[in-house]
Amino acid sequence: MRALVKETAGPGMVLREVPKPVCGASDVLIKVHYAGVCGTDLHIWEWDSWASNRLRPPVVIGHEFAGEVAELGREAEAAGLLAVGDLVTAEGHIVCGHCLQCRIGEAHLCRRTQIIGVDRDGAFADYIAMPASNVMKLDGIPPETGAIMDPTGNAVHTVLEGGIVPGSRVLVLGCGPIGCFAVGVARAAGAALVLASDFNDRRLELARTMGAHVTLNPGREDVVARVKELTGGDGVDLVCEMSGHPAGHAQAFAAARLGGRVNMLGTPSRATEVDFARDVIFKGLTLYGVTGRRMYGTWDVMQRFLRSGQLDPRPVITHRFPLDRMADAIQVIKDGQAGKVILEIGA
Amino acid sequence: MRALVKETAGPGMVLREVPKPVCGASDVLIKVHYAGVCGTDLHIWEWDSWASNRLRPPVVIGHEFAGEVAELGREAEAAGLLAVGDLVTAEGHIVCGHCLQCRIGEAHLCRRTQIIGVDRDGAFADYIAMPASNVMKLDGIPPETGAIMDPTGNAVHTVLEGGIVPGSRVLVLGCGPIGCFAVGVARAAGAALVLASDFNDRRLELARTMGAHVTLNPGREDVVARVKELTGGDGVDLVCEMSGHPAGHAQAFAAARLGGRVNMLGTPSRATEVDFARDVIFKGLTLYGVTGRRMYGTWDVMQRFLRSGQLDPRPVITHRFPLDRMADAIQVIKDGQAGKVILEIGA
Amino acid sequence: MRALVKETAGPGMVLREVPKPVCGASDVLIKVHYAGVCGTDLHIWEWDSWASNRLRPPVVIGHEFAGEVAELGREAEAAGLLAVGDLVTAEGHIVCGHCLQCRIGEAHLCRRTQIIGVDRDGAFADYIAMPASNVMKLDGIPPETGAIMDPTGNAVHTVLEGGIVPGSRVLVLGCGPIGCFAVGVARAAGAALVLASDFNDRRLELARTMGAHVTLNPGREDVVARVKELTGGDGVDLVCEMSGHPAGHAQAFAAARLGGRVNMLGTPSRATEVDFARDVIFKGLTLYGVTGRRMYGTWDVMQRFLRSGQLDPRPVITHRFPLDRMADAIQVIKDGQAGKVILEIGA
Amino acid sequence: MRALVKETAGPGMVLREVPKPVCGASDVLIKVHYAGVCGTDLHIWEWDSWASNRLRPPVVIGHEFAGEVAELGREAEAAGLLAVGDLVTAEGHIVCGHCLQCRIGEAHLCRRTQIIGVDRDGAFADYIAMPASNVMKLDGIPPETGAIMDPTGNAVHTVLEGGIVPGSRVLVLGCGPIGCFAVGVARAAGAALVLASDFNDRRLELARTMGAHVTLNPGREDVVARVKELTGGDGVDLVCEMSGHPAGHAQAFAAARLGGRVNMLGTPSRATEVDFARDVIFKGLTLYGVTGRRMYGTWDVMQRFLRSGQLDPRPVITHRFPLDRMADAIQVIKDGQAGKVILEIGA
Repeated sequence: MRALVKETAGPGMVLREVPKPVCGASDVLIKVHYAGVCGTDLHIWEWDSWASNRLRPPVVIGHEFAGEVAELGREAEAAGLLAVGDLVTAEGHIVCGHCLQCRIGEAHLCRRTQIIGVDRDGAFADYIAMPASNVMKLDGIPPETGAIMDPTGNAVHTVLEGGIVPGSRVLVLGCGPIGCFAVGVARAAGAALVLASDFNDRRLELARTMGAHVTLNPGREDVVARVKELTGGDGVDLVCEMSGHPAGHAQAFAAARLGGRVNMLGTPSRATEVDFARDVIFKGLTLYGVTGRRMYGTWDVMQRFLRSGQLDPRPVITHRFPLDRMADAIQVIKDGQAGKVILEIGA
Repeated sequence: MRALVKETAGPGMVLREVPKPVCGASDVLIKVHYAGVCGTDLHIWEWDSWASNRLRPPVVIGHEFAGEVAELGREAEAAGLLAVGDLVTAEGHIVCGHCLQCRIGEAHLCRRTQIIGVDRDGAFADYIAMPASNVMKLDGIPPETGAIMDPTGNAVHTVLEGGIVPGSRVLVLGCGPIGCFAVGVARAAGAALVLASDFNDRRLELARTMGAHVTLNPGREDVVARVKELTGGDGVDLVCEMSGHPAGHAQAFAAARLGGRVNMLGTPSRATEVDFARDVIFKGLTLYGVTGRRMYGTWDVMQRFLRSGQLDPRPVITHRFPLDRMADAIQVIKDGQAGKVILEIGA
Repeated sequence: MRALVKETAGPGMVLREVPKPVCGASDVLIKVHYAGVCGTDLHIWEWDSWASNRLRPPVVIGHEFAGEVAELGREAEAAGLLAVGDLVTAEGHIVCGHCLQCRIGEAHLCRRTQIIGVDRDGAFADYIAMPASNVMKLDGIPPETGAIMDPTGNAVHTVLEGGIVPGSRVLVLGCGPIGCFAVGVARAAGAALVLASDFNDRRLELARTMGAHVTLNPGREDVVARVKELTGGDGVDLVCEMSGHPAGHAQAFAAARLGGRVNMLGTPSRATEVDFARDVIFKGLTLYGVTGRRMYGTWDVMQRFLRSGQLDPRPVITHRFPLDRMADAIQVIKDGQAGKVILEIGA
Repeated sequence: MRALVKETAGPGMVLREVPKPVCGASDVLIKVHYAGVCGTDLHIWEWDSWASNRLRPPVVIGHEFAGEVAELGREAEAAGLLAVGDLVTAEGHIVCGHCLQCRIGEAHLCRRTQIIGVDRDGAFADYIAMPASNVMKLDGIPPETGAIMDPTGNAVHTVLEGGIVPGSRVLVLGCGPIGCFAVGVARAAGAALVLASDFNDRRLELARTMGAHVTLNPGREDVVARVKELTGGDGVDLVCEMSGHPAGHAQAFAAARLGGRVNMLGTPSRATEVDFARDVIFKGLTLYGVTGRRMYGTWDVMQRFLRSGQLDPRPVITHRFPLDRMADAIQVIKDGQAGKVILEIGA
């Protein structure tokens, strides 16, 4: 089968023929229809320091996808939940099930997590084998949406953690694809006011499409001052920090109300100077670090949002490429004019 | 001034002239514009056993209202939050501030609560004096809506307690005015599926107007079977029990999913037989008794829902009467064809 | 091997030779050292209506036990967490892993739960095979304690649900073994006042041994009046309802403070008449039905309590019998003078 | 009466005669018996940048105290909760009651807080007038303990926020008086393992006296490595950050387990460099900034801990001085050999 492979240490990936993955007893073999291209894939393509420390080539890349069940292992079949031909997506974190975190309902923090497309072969290929317990039926969710449920789930996790959204004022800092999804999730979850901030006007346009009441561009206005003005001087109840920039952190802490919450997903590449006394302690803030998706509470809520029509992430998809045009996909992301980019592999 | 007074033990009320209330140092004197008529007022009119045990006539009736600030006590003025002419509504539970419940954030359960229109003079009058701390500005909320924020707040409390609404499936059992408000609140708070049940088709129509996805009439269909069918066999995550009937309780426990929640507001007039083993313990259910409104968390969320336009309770208002037609207001409620009934007093 | 078997519909059990269980690929074969006898086993012995509806003889009885790893299946061995010779105990609920409840962290409510000693072969035998994911190492916890971690875990679940114990006032209604464990758990978790009630003075003595500050006998005193007196008129923050009697339910609702919590574990054999208006709604109570143990949050906390010495359930063990004296074990339980009864099988 | 007054901008305080405070209608005049000296008082004495920006001399200093009711205002008397002669303490944050935070149960974050001894006259005096709603009866709590319930309450707030203490592993970073109180609170609340760290061995001795299982000195050992070793490699569930040093922050983030919690009370005087990706986001940590005491949930739990004997903060008191020896009190604090220092004013 075809697969996009990081073959050796260094930039780029190659499309080549590799053997179809073996479907173990408790696995499901999935024919990939669509796959999402993520910032992580860009890091891997570029072979930055994170990538070179983490990956051990050769490895098939790609961790966001949807497809069709092609084969079921013996135990997976016995469980009776899936059948050949089912349209499915999957959680890409494969966890140990035994550590403290797995045992107490925090499997998204499993210390032995294997991520597909990073630590083991991924989804930019005609087929991928996944443990059956990671696989979920689409049941009416469009396959393109299925291909981006991994990052949409990041947004669901970020927005819902803390349980304060209905009637709340939410600021999304950073309107990359996950930020735009977060705007849509905040609206679906009953936020009273959703503000979205980014330097890139095209992204702000996507945020508006996803339901942002007001968009803010820090290149042209004082975001914190505007947030205060739009919230009667209070600041927002929840900041979703998706920018991963120290400047975003400073804005997040300043824009949150006394007693508010900052859920942080954007991963900064360098340290942030924090005045904890002024910004966290005297404000009584709660900060929360978002990793992955709660397994599988996040997925359950997301599926309901998607099936009810409360949330539709597809307007964020701006580009589609075939598998052999990955270089172009990487380029539009680097150009900063893309929303979500997906690969059409085998639909 | 005019006031509807329960003058002596026994049915009915009389409209007569009474002295304008004195505005104490920390009080606000409010000119009443609109007032809501509640099931409680019907009990008082009828002089049922609850009313005869609780009320000590003479007392001015009415606890749901909105109006205009006419006068401020010295301390209320000093606080600087209100001004003559402000449009306002008020929490009708006047609490002690000193008991355990008041001290730990559960003032809605204060053991020394005085309810206006029940334990002290109420709002079916040209003026009412209220402690300033109970008074809230409408700030753009329509005065008719302001007059029914007390029962709308009951619905907000019932729907939001437990923090599980976004993406959830909610069943509202009993579509009187507060049940209809609950439907609207569940939609505003991001429920994925809102089911509403009542024997009265006119009420079901109001529930649909407020956003119910599906309405169910237990006179014509098996409500629990339909709920199971509509939820893939799971049952709902949250039941809002607004009927106050033992039959409603049985449906609530049966319709909730394993691990689900039943928030109970409808106050039954007789005991319910409960099979705790089957219906609560083996199902892992949580039951919660709803009294009043959280002071003032419920009001804060409600104000945001109303000001953002996420929630508009006015379609539930079906009848309006002047103060001297209270007998007619009582009659339409008894006839069971009314949604919410309000009195136009001094707008 | 020897096993206590319910061979046919009807009272009693027989001790006989049966084949050693087969150890599947993901299973652990455990040589049983000690096993606890539970009220459930009494129901099965007596063959009451619950038992006759649920069990399909022949089945080996017993669901509380500790022992030693005798053999590991291929996958269980590969996981690397257990070794032959390890002292272990196990969660006796074998769950599907796929249903809504399993997916959202409520596996204790899995709709396809198989309970050992009820729905499949159990632990009153020389050996039992268990899925490796249900097995936990004792790591210093005494094996006798290990044998009763299932019911101790019921107590942990009952006491900790709601998260309000530190500094709280707790009433344990019903001092059978799990009630006595609950007393110890409440003390370990920092309750400020632990009250325990039972008709049986011997059980009250055990409750005192486990740390109850005050014991109450409803045969001699008005429990609710005494609770009010001991809590400055407030009532308790948490009632652990372990009696399973309608009279206990009435006391629970009356003894809880306004805004308090009643966690219910005792399973009544008949319906309770509940005045929801007076007892639940106007009091703002929360009721919660306790099934099993949270998998595996409850176990994690329990292991820490046991290893730190904060909790020691062994004083509740009053009788020990060999496997061939099950009839005597049943008799001392029926006589009502026993605390916890254990079987010494292969220590 | 006598009072310690910051008379003018600049270091030091003077003891002089001032008029007895006027007792307003809703106030209580309290004869001060004991008062606690806080780090804040040291800042005020030294007149550092925080003090010079915040205080407007002349102001009587001191915010931790206990004493005896000497006089009640008219409304305070009418409330019927206090009587002349009652031994009392008080919450020193006087809040507005009207802002968002006051209305939603977060009054400790009121944006218009006035702190006694900082923003208005305080307790290092023979008498202080306090709003009755801030005053609480000691009812059996020793007056010396009453004088330090403000900082003990800081510890209660820090330890209990998040609701995870029973059975948990807790690290207290920084063993000044509040850190030592936190050790005692963690034990009272059922922590399974309490670790305490400080550079000062005398403070570690106090931490041991308060119940620390293990003390760690970062001057002699690698605190994070030791924490990992003592928790089976997991790290702790909760870090109470009381040091207020960037080095403490780094240790806190590193010592917390994946999914753990860091409650921060120590207020740093300079910024901390934080690697949010590594230390917060990928670890799924929750950080919470602690200000004051929850009003009055924190006080309610604290009173129960103190009255039950679960917590006794008095071993932390190492020095007592009369009011005219404030300079000596300041000196022993600066010398770093003191635990808690109190002033004996009028017992």
